[in-house]
Amino acid sequence: MSHTGILRPGFVQLRVLDMQASIDHYTKRIGLHQVTEGRDGRVYLKSADEFDHHSIVLRRADEPGCDFIAFKVRDLSDLAHYKARVEAWGAAVDHVPAGEQPGIGERIGFTVPCGQRIELYHHADHSEPMPLVHNPDVWVLEPHGMRARRFDHALFYGPDVDKTLEFFTKVLDFSCTERVDMPDGLLAIWLTTSMKAHDIAFVKYPEPNKLHHVAFELEDWKDVGHAADILTRYDISIDIGPTRHGITRGQTIYFFDPSGNRNEVFAGGYSYYPDNPTRTWDGDNVGKGIFYYERQLNEAFLSVVT
Amino acid sequence: MSHTGILRPGFVQLRVLDMQASIDHYTKRIGLHQVTEGRDGRVYLKSADEFDHHSIVLRRADEPGCDFIAFKVRDLSDLAHYKARVEAWGAAVDHVPAGEQPGIGERIGFTVPCGQRIELYHHADHSEPMPLVHNPDVWVLEPHGMRARRFDHALFYGPDVDKTLEFFTKVLDFSCTERVDMPDGLLAIWLTTSMKAHDIAFVKYPEPNKLHHVAFELEDWKDVGHAADILTRYDISIDIGPTRHGITRGQTIYFFDPSGNRNEVFAGGYSYYPDNPTRTWDGDNVGKGIFYYERQLNEAFLSVVT
Amino acid sequence: MSHTGILRPGFVQLRVLDMQASIDHYTKRIGLHQVTEGRDGRVYLKSADEFDHHSIVLRRADEPGCDFIAFKVRDLSDLAHYKARVEAWGAAVDHVPAGEQPGIGERIGFTVPCGQRIELYHHADHSEPMPLVHNPDVWVLEPHGMRARRFDHALFYGPDVDKTLEFFTKVLDFSCTERVDMPDGLLAIWLTTSMKAHDIAFVKYPEPNKLHHVAFELEDWKDVGHAADILTRYDISIDIGPTRHGITRGQTIYFFDPSGNRNEVFAGGYSYYPDNPTRTWDGDNVGKGIFYYERQLNEAFLSVVT
Amino acid sequence: MSHTGILRPGFVQLRVLDMQASIDHYTKRIGLHQVTEGRDGRVYLKSADEFDHHSIVLRRADEPGCDFIAFKVRDLSDLAHYKARVEAWGAAVDHVPAGEQPGIGERIGFTVPCGQRIELYHHADHSEPMPLVHNPDVWVLEPHGMRARRFDHALFYGPDVDKTLEFFTKVLDFSCTERVDMPDGLLAIWLTTSMKAHDIAFVKYPEPNKLHHVAFELEDWKDVGHAADILTRYDISIDIGPTRHGITRGQTIYFFDPSGNRNEVFAGGYSYYPDNPTRTWDGDNVGKGIFYYERQLNEAFLSVVT
Repeated sequence: MSHTGILRPGFVQLRVLDMQASIDHYTKRIGLHQVTEGRDGRVYLKSADEFDHHSIVLRRADEPGCDFIAFKVRDLSDLAHYKARVEAWGAAVDHVPAGEQPGIGERIGFTVPCGQRIELYHHADHSEPMPLVHNPDVWVLEPHGMRARRFDHALFYGPDVDKTLEFFTKVLDFSCTERVDMPDGLLAIWLTTSMKAHDIAFVKYPEPNKLHHVAFELEDWKDVGHAADILTRYDISIDIGPTRHGITRGQTIYFFDPSGNRNEVFAGGYSYYPDNPTRTWDGDNVGKGIFYYERQLNEAFLSVVT
Repeated sequence: MSHTGILRPGFVQLRVLDMQASIDHYTKRIGLHQVTEGRDGRVYLKSADEFDHHSIVLRRADEPGCDFIAFKVRDLSDLAHYKARVEAWGAAVDHVPAGEQPGIGERIGFTVPCGQRIELYHHADHSEPMPLVHNPDVWVLEPHGMRARRFDHALFYGPDVDKTLEFFTKVLDFSCTERVDMPDGLLAIWLTTSMKAHDIAFVKYPEPNKLHHVAFELEDWKDVGHAADILTRYDISIDIGPTRHGITRGQTIYFFDPSGNRNEVFAGGYSYYPDNPTRTWDGDNVGKGIFYYERQLNEAFLSVVT
Repeated sequence: MSHTGILRPGFVQLRVLDMQASIDHYTKRIGLHQVTEGRDGRVYLKSADEFDHHSIVLRRADEPGCDFIAFKVRDLSDLAHYKARVEAWGAAVDHVPAGEQPGIGERIGFTVPCGQRIELYHHADHSEPMPLVHNPDVWVLEPHGMRARRFDHALFYGPDVDKTLEFFTKVLDFSCTERVDMPDGLLAIWLTTSMKAHDIAFVKYPEPNKLHHVAFELEDWKDVGHAADILTRYDISIDIGPTRHGITRGQTIYFFDPSGNRNEVFAGGYSYYPDNPTRTWDGDNVGKGIFYYERQLNEAFLSVVT
Repeated sequence: MSHTGILRPGFVQLRVLDMQASIDHYTKRIGLHQVTEGRDGRVYLKSADEFDHHSIVLRRADEPGCDFIAFKVRDLSDLAHYKARVEAWGAAVDHVPAGEQPGIGERIGFTVPCGQRIELYHHADHSEPMPLVHNPDVWVLEPHGMRARRFDHALFYGPDVDKTLEFFTKVLDFSCTERVDMPDGLLAIWLTTSMKAHDIAFVKYPEPNKLHHVAFELEDWKDVGHAADILTRYDISIDIGPTRHGITRGQTIYFFDPSGNRNEVFAGGYSYYPDNPTRTWDGDNVGKGIFYYERQLNEAFLSVVT
């Protein structure tokens, strides 16, 4: 088969301080739909253009941040396959039983060298709203808010980017699409398990297990501008943008959810194939790599994480 | 690895009646660049956003049409792997030595049930212009003409779509993203070996080995409109569009090159994963499937092929 | 003052067969808002980006069509000024008292040589929703449906385009931005009283007092495409498009309201100044003038009017 | 006539330090065309979408800045009319003979309270390239570079904005579309003589006769993004953007020409009619008024002028 093993980031579980404000933010502003609320109070969201049960999980907590990100694998046997490889690498693997989240089958979990918990799962129920499959219209429900089409990727901060790169490429079969090498070593990596320019990314940071942002994909640059209009109209704090990343070429805007978790909505970015070279950036150009128009980093981008 | 086997359509060899008019069309209008001219007069073209040596080959001939489409495989061993599978299926496989086209390694070739010749190859040199890889700008050369970003796919016509579907899915590991089933049988299939909504497609037609169109990808709907402005400004014959396909969701316009080969430039289309369902269309909705706005087929679409 | 006399088309009164279906069409699909319903059952609509009380009036009737189009004048004294000029030209002028439509002051009315009733008025109340004026956001309400920004213009059919041209330019101070001259005489004219490429237009037709379409302005070509998606999603009959007009350069799509009145939504078009030449089209190029991409007229465009 | 008196900003004369670098900037990057070079070395530029002889004049000088901005009037008699009104207001008026600039007739000039020289003229020859007028294509030459469609407006800095407002509205018949009132008085005004949201603007500043920027109009937000790509690709200094103005709603990016004169390219902005209210901004919201997404002023915007 042409696309095997780990398919894509399937969902992410976020900690939020005020559940209703968070639901409003992700549904009314970003444009997702609420699928269901679990018995333990977790709330499950998705874009109407996603088939699977949910792509965002909100969990009430006292601190913002990300509990884990879960990747979907193509075959049930991939769970055992990757469990063995992760354990062979030397990391512990635990099991989460089917049904711990509604609509999701058995999951396995482990911690990567930057400190984040990664999960893999094979089964997800479909849920409404989702794309039509028989004589399908382009959309069933008119896109609303920022018109997010899918949960796309997350960027994490942590101390050991070198080892994380090795783990993702050697154990999980990801490719490194771009990397930033500073005079004192590897600063950041962008990783893909698909044709997307990134499915997950890491930046070096003294503290482990930090979330920089979760990102949602939009159709185009006009929708990025429309997102910016929404952010100002509803007094939502913008971090930076609209701008473009040199890295991935994505056209982007960053802002914060009501709990202080950074969100990105973006459009574009090249298609990646595994025979493509890894794009590299050096210390003199990292500003342009991150923010292509400003050509310099801003303080918040480097230091504000949850 | 996550993307294995056949990666993508790499290049297509087209027959053209007037070489200079064809070069002008594909470079000035569609926005490609000429890489080189071979000793036998064949001319090799590419987009500046493609790494590999070329994606379009023009061959002077007395009849328009397509000689073959060639797919790139990930590993050299994939050539032997697919040779064995194609032969096991019962089709003959021939070899084309490295260098028969400049920059391209050894190829294998065979004929599919709709009559087209398909080739597989592993090696392609890089050629200029191509994307920068160290501190890369978004583009090196300002996009020109229709701003085509890549040769994307081709649609062929031929008599045995059912068998062609079986061949591509069982022998070549493609997925069927969409299909049209008429009361009297399978009319058309869209196939992918990647996350694109289609890498190749087939429509039922009494004569074998016919080309319906070769397609180039554009950034967005605005570029589709700009392509339409170019077509009228330079009196190039438009077949249909700008419109949208219900199938793949692509926003599109069709027109003809100076030899009568149909071209498409398009933008958008969903991302496909192998766990997605196949979208299906029935006879009552095929018009909407092909031309989402017009909701009916036009005569030229069904009958004009090369 | 720099913009004097007649400012713009202010509102149009349309006859509709089914009031609720019409309200749904103009509010949910085109994106207008209902301002109020009059005691006689007429319903008043506007875009949230328009200040004045309303721009569309729906009147229940047994036949579709347009009762009249009303232009707003800059000064109260303009009413007497144009009354005198219209009467001097030989046309009768009648008065409509203030309040005949909610929020609108005194109007005067007369019939042009193509048979349509034109009205002029000076006063309009403001109504909600309308643009903010103190520390204004870009919009108060997120645009919805086709995101129409204003009622923009109307195109009428009637027998005496030559005389209508003379009337609008000599009596009402309009400029002719474009004209189509066929071998047998003047076919069509586009007229402006502003910097818009057209505020009203006329095409030669045997029957007087016919409406070809009323048009709403969108932000850009992407919104024209989104309008097309809406039309197919809700099974609304499309006449033609998305396409571009050579005349005015507008990017456009035509469709029908539930009563059979033709609507246009469009974007773009050049800015006109009164020192600009009139653009002219001849019989060999009228197809390209009307539909820039198709380069030929369609039968419906020429014959379906209300 | 509906648009009388002063029609629009026709051209602006800029001082540049290096003529060839300036020509390259305005033609290759912004997308203008060189019309001619005068015997005194001044160089005349225009957009291919403008009819009149030129809209930008470059003059070699030792300091950057703006010599004057010239507005075109509708009728020859408007020159005498406005001369009398300016003199009645108490300002001196001088004459510039026809031919002092190629293609331009007699001009009159005077100084406004903020210190800038304003000129009025009636006659301008047409020059190539310009829009076609008989069976016109949408464009004759494919737009290039940033695809500027016209010189649009200028923003000036100077000490007496109150008196400048009075002068433009009472003597020159402009309308004030937006104003910023700080606790200590009027900070800034946007003025129009047309349906554009601004034809000229002024911000309070201790020194007289300063240029903040000259602006060129683009088609849409995508072209603003493309302009940003060009700026980074060719290492041109960006001041701010891509962003949106709350004032005028324009989508914009600011940068500097090789001499340090600030340029703006922008798209959008509402259409203004003289019966529209003046939009007002207070001190607490001026940041959002200027930069709608950032919601705060940057130091360079307030202090860097030429």
